[in-house]
Amino acid sequence: MDERGDRGGETEDEEGTVMDRKTTPDVVVVGSVAFDSVQTPKAAHEKLLGGSASYTSVASALFARTGVVGVVGEDFPQDYFDIFDRAGVDVQGLQREKGKTFHWSGVYEDNMNNRRTNCTDLNVFADFNPVIPEAYRTSPFLCLENIAPALQAHVLDQMQKPKFTVLDTMDLWINTTREDLMNVIARVDMLTVNEHEARHLTGKGSLLKAAKKILDMGPTYALIKKGEHGAFLMSKDDILIVPAWPLVEVVDPTGAGDTFAGGLIGTLAALGEVTRDNLHRALVNGTVTAAYTCEAFSVDGLRHITRAQLDERAEAFRRMMP
Amino acid sequence: MDERGDRGGETEDEEGTVMDRKTTPDVVVVGSVAFDSVQTPKAAHEKLLGGSASYTSVASALFARTGVVGVVGEDFPQDYFDIFDRAGVDVQGLQREKGKTFHWSGVYEDNMNNRRTNCTDLNVFADFNPVIPEAYRTSPFLCLENIAPALQAHVLDQMQKPKFTVLDTMDLWINTTREDLMNVIARVDMLTVNEHEARHLTGKGSLLKAAKKILDMGPTYALIKKGEHGAFLMSKDDILIVPAWPLVEVVDPTGAGDTFAGGLIGTLAALGEVTRDNLHRALVNGTVTAAYTCEAFSVDGLRHITRAQLDERAEAFRRMMP
Repeated sequence: MDERGDRGGETEDEEGTVMDRKTTPDVVVVGSVAFDSVQTPKAAHEKLLGGSASYTSVASALFARTGVVGVVGEDFPQDYFDIFDRAGVDVQGLQREKGKTFHWSGVYEDNMNNRRTNCTDLNVFADFNPVIPEAYRTSPFLCLENIAPALQAHVLDQMQKPKFTVLDTMDLWINTTREDLMNVIARVDMLTVNEHEARHLTGKGSLLKAAKKILDMGPTYALIKKGEHGAFLMSKDDILIVPAWPLVEVVDPTGAGDTFAGGLIGTLAALGEVTRDNLHRALVNGTVTAAYTCEAFSVDGLRHITRAQLDERAEAFRRMMP
Repeated sequence: MDERGDRGGETEDEEGTVMDRKTTPDVVVVGSVAFDSVQTPKAAHEKLLGGSASYTSVASALFARTGVVGVVGEDFPQDYFDIFDRAGVDVQGLQREKGKTFHWSGVYEDNMNNRRTNCTDLNVFADFNPVIPEAYRTSPFLCLENIAPALQAHVLDQMQKPKFTVLDTMDLWINTTREDLMNVIARVDMLTVNEHEARHLTGKGSLLKAAKKILDMGPTYALIKKGEHGAFLMSKDDILIVPAWPLVEVVDPTGAGDTFAGGLIGTLAALGEVTRDNLHRALVNGTVTAAYTCEAFSVDGLRHITRAQLDERAEAFRRMMP
């Protein structure tokens, strides 16, 4: 399944994990790259590498050649560029603008299920205008993480008919730019939302009814993420279900949902076709990568695993299910 | 898997579903048999057949010869005895005492996840002294539904070394008779509790840690039921996970957990051995039978399905998982 293959033509570091700038990635991820300051009952860390596109691209790169499109400020350190490099994520789409990097700060309550946001300083992210590098435009798999729906549409306009597009969104856009959101939802293959967003977007209390209503909006697939309770994927005549990986302890759940999307789209890209079996494999890898994210702060849980470890956990996970 | 086989020797009704009184059932279920008055946002019904032993035994009888041990009052109607008969549940262990049948009444809130108890009139159940019929004492599978731990121990004393015993309990016994409860937990093969009870019993917030602590109390297996989020089964070196059946609408969730236990133990009894594969099949059948219970009031969801329908749903459910 590992098709990352041909890297290293113009390697920028000794590890040779960076793509040639002219190579089209299998997956393009567009979204936020941020500093996250996170406090949990056991620890607190300042200005970690965060943002939806960071988690999604690093997870996707475990399975397929991945490029990230986002914006950072002048304060974004080389160390963080290096994290992408070492993870095998191409960063030519990561624009560096005058000003400060998007900064999010939050606190998790005792049970880790509730979090309180302390600050959301958009900074350069407020004026983000995603420009898709030439080499990315023919990429077959596209993941549009949570940004303004008009910008998501602008990305789609720059792409040359991707084979499969996944879209994420959030309450803010459901509340403020619903028409734009509905327009972009109609153009993608899969919408991925959490339980709360699914209910908010559709007005349905039953998650199954909510998922069905999402299909009516255009996408072929609705992926409903239920956090510690797993996820399900609905299509017109079918439903796939995956529980969560049994985690003894959650260190930091930030980015778990974005990681899930990354593991999912990276797997589909590596396998090439979106079949029922491949979607099942993608759901398993999404679950397992998301669990690694929960086991450490930032993208650290994903940085230090080998592909063999990941495959072993995926196999153990499959064996837990009937 | 259907091993109900030899019924009808001394049939008491035309359908020939009742065991010979001398036949040892594959499964004995001990617990409450009650009148349930249930109100949901859409409907209200008075004095339905309810009680943990009713749900568990009717579900178990879909898979294996099952006998029920409980107590009812003089007001318990023949119609309700007939429901057991037609479901293939032997009722010679269902004692009829002077007085009224246990009556529970409750209201479900809008989302069906919260319920409020209006009344719990124990009546004849307050003095329940379970007497195990002679023919039941050599039964290999025993399900001790939620009654006082001392009574559960009294049942165990009457049985001749069942091969596999499942125990359920509730907050009341954790709070009031903890020592008795710990003693009986140490004597069974599987403890089945919901999330809240698992945390309450063990003092652990993490469900995995709670399950591990339950194993330390003696049982080989800890089954944690998570309602609409499925269940997991932990043993010393293993964990099996099953999501819930995707229900579009819940009509009445009363008895779903008891039904799960019934589907589980009935399946194990039909298969004969408690192996990893058989436990997986038992978890699937537990899930599917519990879903049928949620689709109707009382045990009605279980009464009108055929074994073929049930097997079809179980197979569809397995196909939803990776």
